[in-house]
Amino acid sequence: MTADLNKYSVRTDLALEAREMAQPDIHVPLPGVEEHVENAAGIKVTNLNVYNEEGSRAMGRVQGRYLTLEVPALRKKDSDLQDRVATKFAQLFEKYLIDAGVKSTDKVLIVGLGNSNVTPDALGPMVVENILVTRHYFELVPEQVSPGYRQVSAVAPGVLGTTGIESSEIVHAIVEKTRPDVIIAIDALASKALERVNTTIQVADIGIHPGSGIGNKRKGLTQEILGIPCIAIGVPTVCYASTIVNNAIELMKEHFKHENVKSRDVIGLLDEVSEQERLQLVKEVLEPLGHDVIVTPKEVDEFIEDMANIIASGLNAALHEAVDTNNVAAYTH
Amino acid sequence: MTADLNKYSVRTDLALEAREMAQPDIHVPLPGVEEHVENAAGIKVTNLNVYNEEGSRAMGRVQGRYLTLEVPALRKKDSDLQDRVATKFAQLFEKYLIDAGVKSTDKVLIVGLGNSNVTPDALGPMVVENILVTRHYFELVPEQVSPGYRQVSAVAPGVLGTTGIESSEIVHAIVEKTRPDVIIAIDALASKALERVNTTIQVADIGIHPGSGIGNKRKGLTQEILGIPCIAIGVPTVCYASTIVNNAIELMKEHFKHENVKSRDVIGLLDEVSEQERLQLVKEVLEPLGHDVIVTPKEVDEFIEDMANIIASGLNAALHEAVDTNNVAAYTH
Amino acid sequence: MTADLNKYSVRTDLALEAREMAQPDIHVPLPGVEEHVENAAGIKVTNLNVYNEEGSRAMGRVQGRYLTLEVPALRKKDSDLQDRVATKFAQLFEKYLIDAGVKSTDKVLIVGLGNSNVTPDALGPMVVENILVTRHYFELVPEQVSPGYRQVSAVAPGVLGTTGIESSEIVHAIVEKTRPDVIIAIDALASKALERVNTTIQVADIGIHPGSGIGNKRKGLTQEILGIPCIAIGVPTVCYASTIVNNAIELMKEHFKHENVKSRDVIGLLDEVSEQERLQLVKEVLEPLGHDVIVTPKEVDEFIEDMANIIASGLNAALHEAVDTNNVAAYTH
Amino acid sequence: MTADLNKYSVRTDLALEAREMAQPDIHVPLPGVEEHVENAAGIKVTNLNVYNEEGSRAMGRVQGRYLTLEVPALRKKDSDLQDRVATKFAQLFEKYLIDAGVKSTDKVLIVGLGNSNVTPDALGPMVVENILVTRHYFELVPEQVSPGYRQVSAVAPGVLGTTGIESSEIVHAIVEKTRPDVIIAIDALASKALERVNTTIQVADIGIHPGSGIGNKRKGLTQEILGIPCIAIGVPTVCYASTIVNNAIELMKEHFKHENVKSRDVIGLLDEVSEQERLQLVKEVLEPLGHDVIVTPKEVDEFIEDMANIIASGLNAALHEAVDTNNVAAYTH
Repeated sequence: MTADLNKYSVRTDLALEAREMAQPDIHVPLPGVEEHVENAAGIKVTNLNVYNEEGSRAMGRVQGRYLTLEVPALRKKDSDLQDRVATKFAQLFEKYLIDAGVKSTDKVLIVGLGNSNVTPDALGPMVVENILVTRHYFELVPEQVSPGYRQVSAVAPGVLGTTGIESSEIVHAIVEKTRPDVIIAIDALASKALERVNTTIQVADIGIHPGSGIGNKRKGLTQEILGIPCIAIGVPTVCYASTIVNNAIELMKEHFKHENVKSRDVIGLLDEVSEQERLQLVKEVLEPLGHDVIVTPKEVDEFIEDMANIIASGLNAALHEAVDTNNVAAYTH
Repeated sequence: MTADLNKYSVRTDLALEAREMAQPDIHVPLPGVEEHVENAAGIKVTNLNVYNEEGSRAMGRVQGRYLTLEVPALRKKDSDLQDRVATKFAQLFEKYLIDAGVKSTDKVLIVGLGNSNVTPDALGPMVVENILVTRHYFELVPEQVSPGYRQVSAVAPGVLGTTGIESSEIVHAIVEKTRPDVIIAIDALASKALERVNTTIQVADIGIHPGSGIGNKRKGLTQEILGIPCIAIGVPTVCYASTIVNNAIELMKEHFKHENVKSRDVIGLLDEVSEQERLQLVKEVLEPLGHDVIVTPKEVDEFIEDMANIIASGLNAALHEAVDTNNVAAYTH
Repeated sequence: MTADLNKYSVRTDLALEAREMAQPDIHVPLPGVEEHVENAAGIKVTNLNVYNEEGSRAMGRVQGRYLTLEVPALRKKDSDLQDRVATKFAQLFEKYLIDAGVKSTDKVLIVGLGNSNVTPDALGPMVVENILVTRHYFELVPEQVSPGYRQVSAVAPGVLGTTGIESSEIVHAIVEKTRPDVIIAIDALASKALERVNTTIQVADIGIHPGSGIGNKRKGLTQEILGIPCIAIGVPTVCYASTIVNNAIELMKEHFKHENVKSRDVIGLLDEVSEQERLQLVKEVLEPLGHDVIVTPKEVDEFIEDMANIIASGLNAALHEAVDTNNVAAYTH
Repeated sequence: MTADLNKYSVRTDLALEAREMAQPDIHVPLPGVEEHVENAAGIKVTNLNVYNEEGSRAMGRVQGRYLTLEVPALRKKDSDLQDRVATKFAQLFEKYLIDAGVKSTDKVLIVGLGNSNVTPDALGPMVVENILVTRHYFELVPEQVSPGYRQVSAVAPGVLGTTGIESSEIVHAIVEKTRPDVIIAIDALASKALERVNTTIQVADIGIHPGSGIGNKRKGLTQEILGIPCIAIGVPTVCYASTIVNNAIELMKEHFKHENVKSRDVIGLLDEVSEQERLQLVKEVLEPLGHDVIVTPKEVDEFIEDMANIIASGLNAALHEAVDTNNVAAYTH
């Protein structure tokens, strides 16, 4: 099974979840994968470094560094927590850029992928609306630009169904014309676990790959295609119904294990097949009945707006030295 | 178990689904329930008349007439089908009103329940925006009102979290002030089956009961409270994650039955417990993990807008003789 | 000419402008009107107390206390200034309430007048969305309400064209049902001067009168009607084209005066007629040509959102002691 | 005075109004300009062909063919009229394309200029959302494309303040990448007459020039820059306050002329100076006072939505033979 098929079949865009599926026991290290987890003040930060082919095969992911923030309480509309997450994200992302070799003077193009008319897919365009863009000042009045700012531009290229053009083609064209040094692409993702939806931010230096995100891209945004590094920021905003069911059965297995019940008795053969096979079964049952739709939490409007604010204010602080990483929220609305 | 607890535990607001759970075999009649199903041109119409206490207990629903339209293809963005559904709904609803003893001159107050800022809960307010209101003409320039129109007013009372006032209190106050003869309340509902979400319309002459709909009302809108008949129009726009899982296991049972596999082997004890008990189990597993959220399909923005148009144009045609029931779509936008 | 006709003909809802027209010379006091102006940090605060019948006739306004904040720089998208204005407004409004005899335990109903689908008329509904409502906590869990909060509820009753019911009827009904001690009604107004549009806030203890605001109300919200005090908060968001023209001719007169040119030479007879007569002339010319429309600045979306935030955060701080009047912005989004 | 300065000083983007100012008497032909006016069923259609340098100088416009539809009643929310205008526009635009040498197989890129968050500037992006795009079918499944459709793509490039990139640069980049044969650019314009705002559509084969439209472009979209023809579709959605005043004085002059009053007596020297000089005077008076803002009618939300529907449905019908030009409205929502 190739990495890509694997990823598709489990229907998650999170490296964290791919790791869980490759090896559910968190204490057993995966070969070719460096892992570091820290947990403070309600924010869990996981660094996964998939550094060789073996790690890539084991995880079903391309090689790269995956930084993930998980904040289960984010859905509780706590604006103090939101400010803390934005600040933490800004600090981590600033460091991530340095580690990725991005210089403080490098020109950045922010790309907000997705469809602004489909709320769970609108994260990217909404982030773009709150980005502090500066490129035009550098172009038009360079002498008036204060120190501490770098050149930032931002576009929301739309989706194929609305434009008739692959978003990657549009981005490629703009890159050739405006010559940024690095791309930061924001996209809505699919998760296999409902509790990660709208509570998780993933950063990866691997760009955007075909079939990832919730918008069914056919062409990617990668260094190979664009000629410059592309860092992807993703937030899971949806789940497949089949994945919810499959995941629930997995949780039931765990549940019985803790309660010392033989899960074989309770959930029968479902207990014995692999997660992949079980998912296949669930899909076979649900799809013909129109049940395997992609779903999002009821409160999607507010969640997406909050997440877009966190990411935009985090980016504004991480990208411009003049923007205080301790007070990131002041620059968005 | 009381009717109300029963309803809550299965987490569906559809009488159709309550009937399915009370007696999965469609050919076995329920005592105290009259049933009539017809199916034409992709629109399935079910009439359930819960006419005595026995039927009410069996179904776990209050007595009343439940009219349900199911249109599985509605999610496919077919605007011709939408027009046909609006027309069919208008014709059925016109007849429903007559059967309910509503006269063509009776004054109607349309109530759009729900929160206009939460898309899956915004159906009611969105319908209100497209209602052809006429009451003010009758009040201010009665001599200029053309024949074929009746007095219609429409309000969206908001939700408790935004107003600090129960929506039922606001409606009650407006009823006392403006003295309509009948209320038609539109609300977003929960279904137990994802494929019914945004493809189903339920009409019931029982008003709105506490705990129904997706907005957690504490007080209802019923003839007892308001003193006038209240007809509820509901569309399921969400499912509980636990219900999706539970329903999927049910579907897997059916699936294996058709394939002549002993489902006991495949899904173990889950096969043997009742639907209620299994749901209880699923909820116990999912809730502590934050998995039992309420979800809605990803395309919620478009689905809700389409449904609101269908219902508003259907109501406009059903309520005013001067509005052609064969061309209902022309009056909304 | 009655006060009301007078007001209509000049097409302003601002007492400040009525005063200017009654007596353009700011140093000549009006009989029956107390006046106090202060100007600090870009915020001009005017208190007009129309305390007897003579003052009312002179101004063409009902008796009452008119508090006006003018902040010309508000349109410049300065978020620091916005915070300062919200804070100043909160402090002034807190004092205004005390002077009006409103006690800190009095129950408040906020009424957001206007049409949420017409941006320049959406101020009221937008304020309501950002109000910290608490009444339901007092009703449902009174023992859990922290000290420093009072009972606040908030409704947006919609407009006659959408509901078929006068907004005043809806408010009256809700008042009878929920028994608040005082009403605070927010409404969009018309100004005669474009530079006051979206830069001015007027507070008046006179309620809402028929024909005021931009939504053409036929019935008012006043203590006489409602039985409780009604404080109106208004922001001019529109001008009539005829008023813009008329005002411009007035400004040209002033301009020439300063330049020692005889304005009679420049603008002819227009110089000699009264402002009323000239406006009549302008309207006669513009109306048949479809030119006398009501206009709003191009940036209306942002202005209205900013103003709604200022007023909502100011109200939240003024109404609840527990909300810090020095950090008012934190409670809205 | 160059053409461009002239245009700026009168602050109109309509060729029709430039013609009126160059020669107010409609019966006196302008040298170098062919003119044809027809008026039927409430829709006035003007063709202006500025065919040589002399005409260009006289009009203060670049050479080209200007087609203008004026429909004063469009603001009255008459949906029948809207359908008729969409149909008329589709028919005229289809012919316009043929006259411009655009073949029925030519690939078209629709460009929606403007800011989707500023309602009076959102026309372009709103049209793009309702365009029937087909390019991706031609690219991905060419064998499945029915006859009667051509390749159409559509983008909304955003505005400089949000993206940091000139919209013309983005369009240029996309043109180089996707190689359309012709561009159709939709933009919001400024008019000098309020009654033309949101009632007028202008088509011109001259592209978009710097400083035109309401978004202050610095670079244009023209055949010289892009290498392919660019047809501009514009709708005036705003006026400058100074233009409203100036125009009103002009209307007063006309008014007195008809009433046999010597306007010299009434409006003094204002009667004698040229329109340009008077405008200069008005601007000098209004600008320092913050009065010379750009305004739009109060009902801007609805007007822009209606206009976007008319243009999008007209384009869909004009561009695809398979879309019936007699039933254009069915394809948008």
